[in-house]
Amino acid sequence: MKTDIQIAQEAQMIPITEVAAPYGISGDDLELYGKYKAKLSDELWEEVKDRPDGKLVLVTAINPTPAGEGKTTTSVGLGQAMAKLNQKAMICLREPSLGPCFGIKGGAAGGGYAQVVPMEDLNLHFTGDFHAITSANNLLAAMLDNHIQQGNALNIDTRQIVWKRCLDMNDRVLRNVVVGLGAKADGYVREDHFVITVASEIMAILCLANDMADLKERLGKIIAAYTVSGEPVTAAQLNAVGAMAALLKDAIKPNLIQTLEHTPALVHGGPFANIAHGCNSVRATKTALKLADIVITEAGFGADLGAEKFFDIKCRKSGLKPDAVVLVATVRALKYNGGVPKQELAKENLDALAKGIVNLEKHIENLQKFGVPVVVTLNAFATDTQAEYEFIRDFCQERGCEFALSEVWAKGGEGGMALAEKVLETLQSKESHYHPLYELDLPLKAKIGTIAREIYGADNVVYAPAASRMLARLEELGFGNLPVCMAKNQYSLSDDASRLGRPTGFDITIREVYVSAGAGFIVALTGNIMTMPGLPKTPAAFGIDVDDSGRITGLF
Amino acid sequence: MKTDIQIAQEAQMIPITEVAAPYGISGDDLELYGKYKAKLSDELWEEVKDRPDGKLVLVTAINPTPAGEGKTTTSVGLGQAMAKLNQKAMICLREPSLGPCFGIKGGAAGGGYAQVVPMEDLNLHFTGDFHAITSANNLLAAMLDNHIQQGNALNIDTRQIVWKRCLDMNDRVLRNVVVGLGAKADGYVREDHFVITVASEIMAILCLANDMADLKERLGKIIAAYTVSGEPVTAAQLNAVGAMAALLKDAIKPNLIQTLEHTPALVHGGPFANIAHGCNSVRATKTALKLADIVITEAGFGADLGAEKFFDIKCRKSGLKPDAVVLVATVRALKYNGGVPKQELAKENLDALAKGIVNLEKHIENLQKFGVPVVVTLNAFATDTQAEYEFIRDFCQERGCEFALSEVWAKGGEGGMALAEKVLETLQSKESHYHPLYELDLPLKAKIGTIAREIYGADNVVYAPAASRMLARLEELGFGNLPVCMAKNQYSLSDDASRLGRPTGFDITIREVYVSAGAGFIVALTGNIMTMPGLPKTPAAFGIDVDDSGRITGLF
Repeated sequence: MKTDIQIAQEAQMIPITEVAAPYGISGDDLELYGKYKAKLSDELWEEVKDRPDGKLVLVTAINPTPAGEGKTTTSVGLGQAMAKLNQKAMICLREPSLGPCFGIKGGAAGGGYAQVVPMEDLNLHFTGDFHAITSANNLLAAMLDNHIQQGNALNIDTRQIVWKRCLDMNDRVLRNVVVGLGAKADGYVREDHFVITVASEIMAILCLANDMADLKERLGKIIAAYTVSGEPVTAAQLNAVGAMAALLKDAIKPNLIQTLEHTPALVHGGPFANIAHGCNSVRATKTALKLADIVITEAGFGADLGAEKFFDIKCRKSGLKPDAVVLVATVRALKYNGGVPKQELAKENLDALAKGIVNLEKHIENLQKFGVPVVVTLNAFATDTQAEYEFIRDFCQERGCEFALSEVWAKGGEGGMALAEKVLETLQSKESHYHPLYELDLPLKAKIGTIAREIYGADNVVYAPAASRMLARLEELGFGNLPVCMAKNQYSLSDDASRLGRPTGFDITIREVYVSAGAGFIVALTGNIMTMPGLPKTPAAFGIDVDDSGRITGLF
Repeated sequence: MKTDIQIAQEAQMIPITEVAAPYGISGDDLELYGKYKAKLSDELWEEVKDRPDGKLVLVTAINPTPAGEGKTTTSVGLGQAMAKLNQKAMICLREPSLGPCFGIKGGAAGGGYAQVVPMEDLNLHFTGDFHAITSANNLLAAMLDNHIQQGNALNIDTRQIVWKRCLDMNDRVLRNVVVGLGAKADGYVREDHFVITVASEIMAILCLANDMADLKERLGKIIAAYTVSGEPVTAAQLNAVGAMAALLKDAIKPNLIQTLEHTPALVHGGPFANIAHGCNSVRATKTALKLADIVITEAGFGADLGAEKFFDIKCRKSGLKPDAVVLVATVRALKYNGGVPKQELAKENLDALAKGIVNLEKHIENLQKFGVPVVVTLNAFATDTQAEYEFIRDFCQERGCEFALSEVWAKGGEGGMALAEKVLETLQSKESHYHPLYELDLPLKAKIGTIAREIYGADNVVYAPAASRMLARLEELGFGNLPVCMAKNQYSLSDDASRLGRPTGFDITIREVYVSAGAGFIVALTGNIMTMPGLPKTPAAFGIDVDDSGRITGLF
């Protein structure tokens, strides 16, 4: 069997200009990065911004399991299938982070015959967006420490610096560091922390900004530290906004690449789905809606995190109106939720399926709360049985959901025709009554409570004393009307990663709260969220190589 | 008077494909980064590598002063002038570092009407080469700390880790840090240091590598740490080579841009000129020599550092044979060397000129020791007088050097015609007998002594005890046959920055020595060399901005 990178490298790509042309994107609208990658020019947006929007389809999933679900694979395959049905479709995905590439196997370009290419470029530096974000993030950090070094006119409390440095690297020793050691010229000594670039607030900002003016306004609102008396110190006060924006001037432009079947894909931005909202950029999605009739996008982790934030943060804030949701599951993952260990997932087990399908059930109910029609799809594996399929199909139909099998991993667009047809049917026959889950004028604790009870199924929310105090302080500071971005483990609907299926009788504990004022949301952490991964004992980097002709091997 | 960025932004660039075409570079040989930047493909090198070489001209300068010399401006202007004389000329420059952009004014794209463009792109992310180097550098660091975390099979001594992390940022608090704080999963606590990306050994390696195979071999030789028993631990032993090379696969390809007059310029690589060799990439220079009849390149700092390393490291190791040297001075800088304070440099002062010209004299003598014909040029300023010019011209001619005035800053290529004619005359009439200053089989101390006495004019070399021990150890380890890369202040021929002119009666003190085994040289430090700059009280970043249409202001 071929690996993903083999399939990707054997792909016959066509020049990106040819991918773009049928969508009315001329060569002048493209800023080429080689023959197969391009950024969309600012001028293109100006040309198309008053056109009517196409239909917006979100691809989300049940809670992730070690068995794998294949959300990106489904998104890409669905786009390929739509094109086969002569639909003018475009795919909007997140850019992968460089760090995990060298850590644990796991690409972010789809899989099998449903991939976007060139996959090596996408997984390495791509068009440099993440490097630009790293630079902007670290420029703010350097300017903050320099402000302190040069006299600290703003009276920044070095114990209350909240801005962290970042690198797009899995590097555990940078989680907790002490900086500024040495002599007087080397700065004040203080504790600091590095996060991975995707966890930088600038990543979230870039993905939520409508344009350069909005980007700059958001950058200016970033709270980098607090003064000794507890007042926020912003990036604007540190005079850092213009220079940060200059570093981001190209990163704000969406990137265009293609699927294995030449369907256009805008791959742009990639914020974490726990401490941030986990969706590709608003700018890419909005542009795609002007250029295509059907836009397929995805959100990070399971629907409890990704879809909720897509609806409550991304769509609400940017005015996007989703028309349908595709909910991805696998037979294997549902059996895993039913208690089957990983090594036994290949065997048919209808009892375990019946036990585990409650996870899918809860996500269906959740998605219906946003008023958007749901299509469930199973990403097919060779070991699945017909009886298992039929059980799941019937289960979905009883709950008012369309159902379709997807074989895009093995067959590309051809394997996604059934799903594409169901999605098209849904778009034509069912109206979306999209609305966010909660109103913004509720108190912060009421918003957190609504998500915890309605989406996670919790009984109550318990607040650590510091979290309660911080929520009160944030409301005092005028941030009470922001949406809440929940940082929760992705594996369970609860805040305990080991509770699979559809847990009940649990509380959600909010341990820490802070504001991402530039991104425009309150982050509520239910536990320790890892914002700087480490490398495993045998990192994927050991197996990566490039031959004398520049061909890369060992990327997954 | 227009600023450099105003002139650059008003430039009418032509598509880079049109810049390339007259040099036999087809569209297929270019990997475009937008319309005005491109990388040269690996295939192009394969096509042209057996052609005869053009002539190679090095542009270097007297010791830098606060008055400014204009080495890059002269290089660019000379290239523009050659084109005006219908010569097939190409310019090879270093890429500027992002960090200093936000610190103290000082672009690296030339100045006035002798610039390369697009200057904003060049000064910001350009084609991402430096970001790739940052990533590769920090991947090795992460893999090293991960090796220790996972059991330290190589027995690395955490007190003897010599590999530093890097960022392309001026950030003084990262000079001395402690990493690995926190819990067991967060690594071992140790002292660490960040350098600016241009100081990474990977930058030097990229610039000296002939091709991907050579790059990988050099990466493998990097010494990242020593074991408890003092044995070197290399990047190859850490299994990091393939992944680092994958990150560098595009960075190794030269970048093509244009001057204000559309002359092609390969701008590629930019290692420090103190702890590294300070020249653009071998690959760019070699490619240019196959594509053009005259190639103009430059080296960092003054001729005592830049030109010496160009001859003794870059040319020796890569087989390049320079045909002529242009030595840049200014009337102001020579008067400054003669003791005139900065604010009085505008006044004619023949006495100070006579006193300061000894700096130029020493550099002429030095360059002649390499057997290469020398042309002295004065980068003209409005305040210079005719009497001053004539004094310098006569001085040069008495020493067997051609002389020409250069007005490229004010007039572009037109202002460089006199210089270009002198260079052409020299290339036609004077044969180069280039040879390095010293033989590689001398003991390391003999090589250091030769440079110190012959080039700097020192009486003796004094070694700190640790430096002596390390030199002996390096010879034991088999590094005795490498050339020496001297890390000295750039302002004086001596190791005391305050001694201008042509100091005599001094010793050079070697305080520290280490090997850059991948780059292939021994670094000998004569004092504290700053490898991580800081930001000033009012950083240039305060004045940088980008408007809603993406236009950048405030870059110098």
